Amino acid sequence: MLSQWMKEKDIEMSFLTSTESVFYLSGFYSDPHERLLGVAVFQEEEPFLICPAMEKEDAKKAGWPYEIIGYSDIENQWEIVQKAVSKRVNKVTQIGIEKEHMNVERYEELNKLFPGTSFVSAEEKLRKLRMVKDEKELSTIKEACALADYAIEVGCSEIKEGKTELEILAAIEFALKKKGVTAMSFSTMVLTGANGASPHGNPGQTKIQKGDLVLFDLGVVVDGYCSDITRTVAYGDISDKQREIYDTVLKAQLAAVEASKPGVTCSEVDLTARKIIADAGYGEYFPHRLGHGLGISVHEYPSLTETNDLLLEKGMVYTIEPGIYVPGVAGVRIEDDVYVTENGVEILTKFPKELQTI
Amino acid sequence: MLSQWMKEKDIEMSFLTSTESVFYLSGFYSDPHERLLGVAVFQEEEPFLICPAMEKEDAKKAGWPYEIIGYSDIENQWEIVQKAVSKRVNKVTQIGIEKEHMNVERYEELNKLFPGTSFVSAEEKLRKLRMVKDEKELSTIKEACALADYAIEVGCSEIKEGKTELEILAAIEFALKKKGVTAMSFSTMVLTGANGASPHGNPGQTKIQKGDLVLFDLGVVVDGYCSDITRTVAYGDISDKQREIYDTVLKAQLAAVEASKPGVTCSEVDLTARKIIADAGYGEYFPHRLGHGLGISVHEYPSLTETNDLLLEKGMVYTIEPGIYVPGVAGVRIEDDVYVTENGVEILTKFPKELQTI
Repeated sequence: MLSQWMKEKDIEMSFLTSTESVFYLSGFYSDPHERLLGVAVFQEEEPFLICPAMEKEDAKKAGWPYEIIGYSDIENQWEIVQKAVSKRVNKVTQIGIEKEHMNVERYEELNKLFPGTSFVSAEEKLRKLRMVKDEKELSTIKEACALADYAIEVGCSEIKEGKTELEILAAIEFALKKKGVTAMSFSTMVLTGANGASPHGNPGQTKIQKGDLVLFDLGVVVDGYCSDITRTVAYGDISDKQREIYDTVLKAQLAAVEASKPGVTCSEVDLTARKIIADAGYGEYFPHRLGHGLGISVHEYPSLTETNDLLLEKGMVYTIEPGIYVPGVAGVRIEDDVYVTENGVEILTKFPKELQTI
Repeated sequence: MLSQWMKEKDIEMSFLTSTESVFYLSGFYSDPHERLLGVAVFQEEEPFLICPAMEKEDAKKAGWPYEIIGYSDIENQWEIVQKAVSKRVNKVTQIGIEKEHMNVERYEELNKLFPGTSFVSAEEKLRKLRMVKDEKELSTIKEACALADYAIEVGCSEIKEGKTELEILAAIEFALKKKGVTAMSFSTMVLTGANGASPHGNPGQTKIQKGDLVLFDLGVVVDGYCSDITRTVAYGDISDKQREIYDTVLKAQLAAVEASKPGVTCSEVDLTARKIIADAGYGEYFPHRLGHGLGISVHEYPSLTETNDLLLEKGMVYTIEPGIYVPGVAGVRIEDDVYVTENGVEILTKFPKELQTI
């Protein structure tokens, strides 16, 4: 609970203004761009939500049971915040804010409003709170994962000699839109040939040819929650070397899934996969972390790196996505989203991981 | 010139970190998310660009002729900034930053780096600089407008009884992706029936029916520059009232185009359209400004409102987009992008504006 942390740290008020934090705390998802949206949380007193007047009804409908203050474009939103705060607490010596999100303009306004107050970053605490998912969040993420699986199916069915990466990408997003999907977790990746051998390639006019590996990396947003899947498939016969790379990544991925359970550190899971890849001689071609948490953001806690000694716990949702990228030879990544259970993980993305040949 | 303004204001250094400003000043378009990207500008000394090490080559390729400093994830980027600054200037009493963009975390770092320095917002100045486009910018915007025209054509060809807004939207973006488009200026809008009568409707599963108006609002990004077009078309026979509303909007749009030329204020142009709509009895149903500048951002200066006394000048690019939204009856908006010439405007979006009946 945020208020518990605020008591421990003597923070009288937190004022959170990112779309993600407001959604996490209030259930109301909105991005009013340059307009102010915020949730104010106190140690004991009731929180409030401030938003543009035209969004007030939507905020109510989203289920927020506390005060909602709508402001028009001609009102001074900061005076409204101050008034609502002074109704709740007498003095504010420390305010929790999102220092990576809040801009200097707003920070200066808050400094004027609460002179002499110090500002504390609430972000680390929010990240930790968001890290463990409840049943409702899990079920939403499962829906997002099912659509990601469907997207990979569509992608595979679109592979044909001479089609470009962008054509296949467009067909995938077209199929998703027809199912009512309105947002992807990030820019969809369809990469083939040399392009797939770069961990940061961008889809373009490269045409698919027999003997290519095709890498899909994509995610779907459902009710504010993200999925994230990667599959690499073969178009026609691939070389022994490509096959060896695929098998190595798959082995590493399966081992990392197996190693995942409460009480194990993030680094142990990362290193399980990393060792298999290094032992096969591809260590230098796996240049990124094993995975990342996901939820309201597509990248959140926990971070599965070689050095993170954070313990896995029940309710965490994260990706397991080892990859090997050998320039001129092959780029392979296999990524699942998993949910930590009592004694292991449940895999949320279900598209087959054995090499699919189209 | 930014440095001219800095001399006038005694600002020794500006440090600009938004993707848009860095692109405007350096020609390098990049969004490295949480990583630092910035251009430092001085009154007399050479500017420098700082970016993640892996982006250094791309920045060079983009044509930036001055120093480019790449930093790795294990280096202290702020110390690097300080060192590069101290090579150029001895003391810094005022720094220009983007207060609406820079977050508190970075602001605190800059405050530590340059203690006692005051910070000035450079945003208003940058907006004014970006307002007037050069030939190269104009030609890029023209390309983006041609693709927007094409998108409307595709949209019209997709209209069919029972198709949903999202299906048509998906078909438009599919066709654009096949032409190599990788980004839209904003979320594409396809609205029909009651949905189109809301100026902030969202495309969904509403099915198109005979007698509906269908409103498309979309834009394409080409080489970092945006277009923005709106057309409203009829599917089958529409009512006399709907026709009257269409004709009124068109009359207002044409009059505003006609009124646009150097030396006229933004408000004069807005009021020209507004008066026609009000005289026709629809004043209360035109609840937004007439238009906005566009370029690297889809909303920039000049803002065409009832009260903006800014004078139009050659080289400005902006939208002219009057609309009438009568709940339960019709929503019509017609939007062109125009470029201010010596004695009028050139219309950059070419799709016909006479009512198209599908």
